[in-house]
Amino acid sequence: MQFHHHGYVTTDPRIQPAAGIGLDRPADLPDEMDLLIVGAGPAGMLLAAQMSQYPTISTRLVERRSGRLEMGQADGIQARSVETFQAFGFAERVIAEAFHLTAMNFWASDPADPSRIIRTQRTVDDPYGFSEFPHLIINQARILDYFAEAALNGPGRITADFGYELVGLEVGDGEHPVRVTLRTASGEERVVRAKYVVGADGARSAVRESLGMRLEGTQALHAWAVMDALTVTDFPDIRTKCQVQTAQGGIQLIPREGGFLYRMYVDLGEVDPNDNGAVRTTTVEAAIAKANRILHPYTLDVRAVPWYSVYEVGHRLTTKFDDVPAAEVGTRAPRVFIAGDACHTHSAKAGQGMNVSMQDTFNLGWKLGQVLLGRSPESLLDTYAVERQEVAKNLIDFDREWSEMLTKDPTEIPPEELADFYVRTAEFPAGFRTHYKPSIVTGDEEHQALAAGFPIGKRFQSAPVVRVADANPVHLGHHARADGRWRIYAFADTEATELDTWAEWMLASADSPVTRFTEPAAEIDSVFDVKVVFQGTHEQVDIGEVPDLFLPRVGPYGLVDYEKVYATNPEQDFFELRGIDRGGCVVVVRPDMYVAHVLPLTAREQLGAFLGQSMLDVRAHVPA
Amino acid sequence: MQFHHHGYVTTDPRIQPAAGIGLDRPADLPDEMDLLIVGAGPAGMLLAAQMSQYPTISTRLVERRSGRLEMGQADGIQARSVETFQAFGFAERVIAEAFHLTAMNFWASDPADPSRIIRTQRTVDDPYGFSEFPHLIINQARILDYFAEAALNGPGRITADFGYELVGLEVGDGEHPVRVTLRTASGEERVVRAKYVVGADGARSAVRESLGMRLEGTQALHAWAVMDALTVTDFPDIRTKCQVQTAQGGIQLIPREGGFLYRMYVDLGEVDPNDNGAVRTTTVEAAIAKANRILHPYTLDVRAVPWYSVYEVGHRLTTKFDDVPAAEVGTRAPRVFIAGDACHTHSAKAGQGMNVSMQDTFNLGWKLGQVLLGRSPESLLDTYAVERQEVAKNLIDFDREWSEMLTKDPTEIPPEELADFYVRTAEFPAGFRTHYKPSIVTGDEEHQALAAGFPIGKRFQSAPVVRVADANPVHLGHHARADGRWRIYAFADTEATELDTWAEWMLASADSPVTRFTEPAAEIDSVFDVKVVFQGTHEQVDIGEVPDLFLPRVGPYGLVDYEKVYATNPEQDFFELRGIDRGGCVVVVRPDMYVAHVLPLTAREQLGAFLGQSMLDVRAHVPA
Repeated sequence: MQFHHHGYVTTDPRIQPAAGIGLDRPADLPDEMDLLIVGAGPAGMLLAAQMSQYPTISTRLVERRSGRLEMGQADGIQARSVETFQAFGFAERVIAEAFHLTAMNFWASDPADPSRIIRTQRTVDDPYGFSEFPHLIINQARILDYFAEAALNGPGRITADFGYELVGLEVGDGEHPVRVTLRTASGEERVVRAKYVVGADGARSAVRESLGMRLEGTQALHAWAVMDALTVTDFPDIRTKCQVQTAQGGIQLIPREGGFLYRMYVDLGEVDPNDNGAVRTTTVEAAIAKANRILHPYTLDVRAVPWYSVYEVGHRLTTKFDDVPAAEVGTRAPRVFIAGDACHTHSAKAGQGMNVSMQDTFNLGWKLGQVLLGRSPESLLDTYAVERQEVAKNLIDFDREWSEMLTKDPTEIPPEELADFYVRTAEFPAGFRTHYKPSIVTGDEEHQALAAGFPIGKRFQSAPVVRVADANPVHLGHHARADGRWRIYAFADTEATELDTWAEWMLASADSPVTRFTEPAAEIDSVFDVKVVFQGTHEQVDIGEVPDLFLPRVGPYGLVDYEKVYATNPEQDFFELRGIDRGGCVVVVRPDMYVAHVLPLTAREQLGAFLGQSMLDVRAHVPA
Repeated sequence: MQFHHHGYVTTDPRIQPAAGIGLDRPADLPDEMDLLIVGAGPAGMLLAAQMSQYPTISTRLVERRSGRLEMGQADGIQARSVETFQAFGFAERVIAEAFHLTAMNFWASDPADPSRIIRTQRTVDDPYGFSEFPHLIINQARILDYFAEAALNGPGRITADFGYELVGLEVGDGEHPVRVTLRTASGEERVVRAKYVVGADGARSAVRESLGMRLEGTQALHAWAVMDALTVTDFPDIRTKCQVQTAQGGIQLIPREGGFLYRMYVDLGEVDPNDNGAVRTTTVEAAIAKANRILHPYTLDVRAVPWYSVYEVGHRLTTKFDDVPAAEVGTRAPRVFIAGDACHTHSAKAGQGMNVSMQDTFNLGWKLGQVLLGRSPESLLDTYAVERQEVAKNLIDFDREWSEMLTKDPTEIPPEELADFYVRTAEFPAGFRTHYKPSIVTGDEEHQALAAGFPIGKRFQSAPVVRVADANPVHLGHHARADGRWRIYAFADTEATELDTWAEWMLASADSPVTRFTEPAAEIDSVFDVKVVFQGTHEQVDIGEVPDLFLPRVGPYGLVDYEKVYATNPEQDFFELRGIDRGGCVVVVRPDMYVAHVLPLTAREQLGAFLGQSMLDVRAHVPA
């Protein structure tokens, strides 16, 4: 956490100084705005927190509810999401508050006495060390609280405008081409205009419907009861995630935060095609009775059920994530986007919904920011739908496979096969299988071998280093914040000679991305946060010899920022851990933490050309 | 963090349900109260946060300032304090916000050219692994903020009453024997009465003076300038704690939170006995000029100085920490206590003041709680002065030695000797040398060998275990909260047979401390939080076979608390790490986290007798 460089801070440094619109934010919804976000779920709230880092952009968020969400349905937080929370500054608090999911046990009917269940297998959650962050379970409402705080504490001071329902949307012309009709709780209609609109308004998205798009896919003829319960039981794994498989149906049990509550999915079996929703009238008592039959010889004495629902699994995907039909891409830029459940719905079994929704808008936010600030051409916005549509399709496919497996009894899928699938495919539900294809913001693999541990198009996986100036062992990736900046990591060659040449070029050349893409009046690291990792230990690095690029002057006092210069941790050599070539290299990371490119230190023109695909030369905007 | 057992919690679980006086806390200072705390510094605010966990006790805190402290002088947070913050529930936030002190470098005049300084040694901060928590540097004002939040979020909902200065205090008779005269900012006087008063009102404590006590000791004839500064410099260790020794005097430099600010102590040299405070007029410019001479050939270009002061080192201690003179101890119970700077003042060089002050009131709070609740006799209160007076004396002695060493030039104390002293004595400034002597709350060493890693009278040093119910790797000590409860850790014998006998006795015997010292209407773990650690792995423990003592029913639903049953972590066997006898044992830990006793599982009567020294049989209070 860095502060004091703009003056002494006596109160909570998480509250950033207000700036731009945040200095005097209108309390009431204005008639015109740059960006309108519809829906205050995980996708919408992450986007609000992200846009609060762009305080000169006018962003509003409208939500149909009258206030804060009391109880969310989602609860699974994959490690990828916790990494994202770290970037938004609240990971440590969520980690302290949430349940840590470190194991999953499998139970099935005892072959010797099928009326009884036995534990067939224990597995470890994250057997591969995908992330330094844990897998968590916590109420979605609390995640929204944390994002709301981040949005309010950011320079833009964004808060939700509650009580507005979207009833119509049209894309026209002009500076604010999107015309949105809202309705208040009292029934009054109000028209506002925005440059861009993001519909994060859930499975029954009014934004999506206004665009004439539907969720397409299948409704499986299989129903589940789901509840959050407080229970006294002799079932020994009530505090461990479990999958129970029996001929009478399955149960998935997931412990929740706080030490007592758990989520339970009870298999209600196949649904007759002519059921017409009758299954949804299944009572909580009936679901508990069924759970008791499945868990025999163990019993559940349920004392309270704060939340209960019945649903039939559906797997559906929208045709497009923005308002430009596939055939028209390139002829005009998108003005309306949809994200989260508005784009994709599926079962809750893989704990994915909230996570993928947040990554949707984390992908979109910085792109909107760059375009609205004039740093990037509108074409950057086309990459959102391309990148996230593929992720959603993979999600639907994975979830269909997994949720169908969960309806099988032990004779159809042996318990060990279920456990093996769960462990083998763990990278996907942990959130790390997303792999963006080459585009204007994702490079090709020509030089991938220089940093084998940073696959281009996948998320930047942090690892330990030592900060030179203060000998602090830190995680390299944790310095990155969700502030819309690109990260460029320079890994030094053994003698740091190529590094010096590269750093001088970056700082001083008229062709360097820093020179071309940073507004002249802005601080030098305001667009690109450039860091260096040396091959030696911190004691071997002389801070006086480090190029100025990595020790920028910041704030009104022109102070030196010492937090961009790193050495290896002798116990965990970063170069070994991430397969970095000893000749050094440059790893470019997008503002949403995905590796954009890997290049040699000598490929300076290639670096400029790559970034020039998605960024505008902002020097040209300034009168000579 | 445990919640939901008293009903579903949708908002921040750090906000505990209000209870007792917290349900309808009077906004204005009442005329009578159980406990009056004077002073909202670290000692007073910790005590307020502690007493908020005793919501049936009426506690008020008055402070002369009109509001929140803007800038504190103290900044060093020893690992012991971070352990304490963990118990108060905000360690992870302070850790995220503070500077982490992991190294200290020593500089001295270059023997080859005494006009220049050179780095003579690098040392590692906490070379011994005293704690799993780090050594931090952060503004005292922020620590007060966190305690204020804990006090407000506790069931007692305690907040400070600002703008009240204490002008008089008398101890008389009656139910509220302490008569306190307060003055408001507008000069009005107000008399309130309390059962007990704690003076945490600083070095010029009005409470202490009302008791007719003084700080006694010496004023060293040596002055230092101290500043928090924002600087551009070529000194390479500006972000590392440094001690610089030259013939012109020394500098101590301590980086601060946020990445830019640092604290600098500049040696102003010996002070003439007839100086009469003239040294205190030394300007900040003069201090900076002197710093530049000492640091030559490096230069400091100071851009801002948010805080500056000049002081002469004093080492002073009060005669007694309560209002009962030594000769009268045992004849009457203390009614007034002093804590923190009101008792002990010394140099800032060892970073101790705020830390020792907080431990003063952490020692006192639970004792006041137990006496005011009727759980303990008033004699318990005598132990406060005994225990903390010795700590204060050791502190004064240590600080005198260290701060005198820092005034010596390299010819008087070779730099390597200074560094050696710093590393060798590191346990003291880290806060872990406190070792309470046998008393009614600290046992004798008869069975110490059963748990060699838990010295009786020292703080309980946590270590990793695995929670059986959910396979979570956790730190055993982190489950303990600053809630006034005693912790009793039962370490199982290999076959757990002695454990079973002990557990049954604890739960059911008329002689057990749980039976004798827990109010009949209270939850079974409300006084003693009893946990078990088994010798095997979590997979080897059958939760169905664990004695009921360790799986208590809690809350209105009678839910099972699963967070008291632990197994060893195979990679870090707790029994090995802490030298626990394989025959098992019982480790009793006081509410302030100090080890009170180590006993065999078979020494049941001895356990009851030990606790009976400081606790009252509360069954007797209930009509038969």
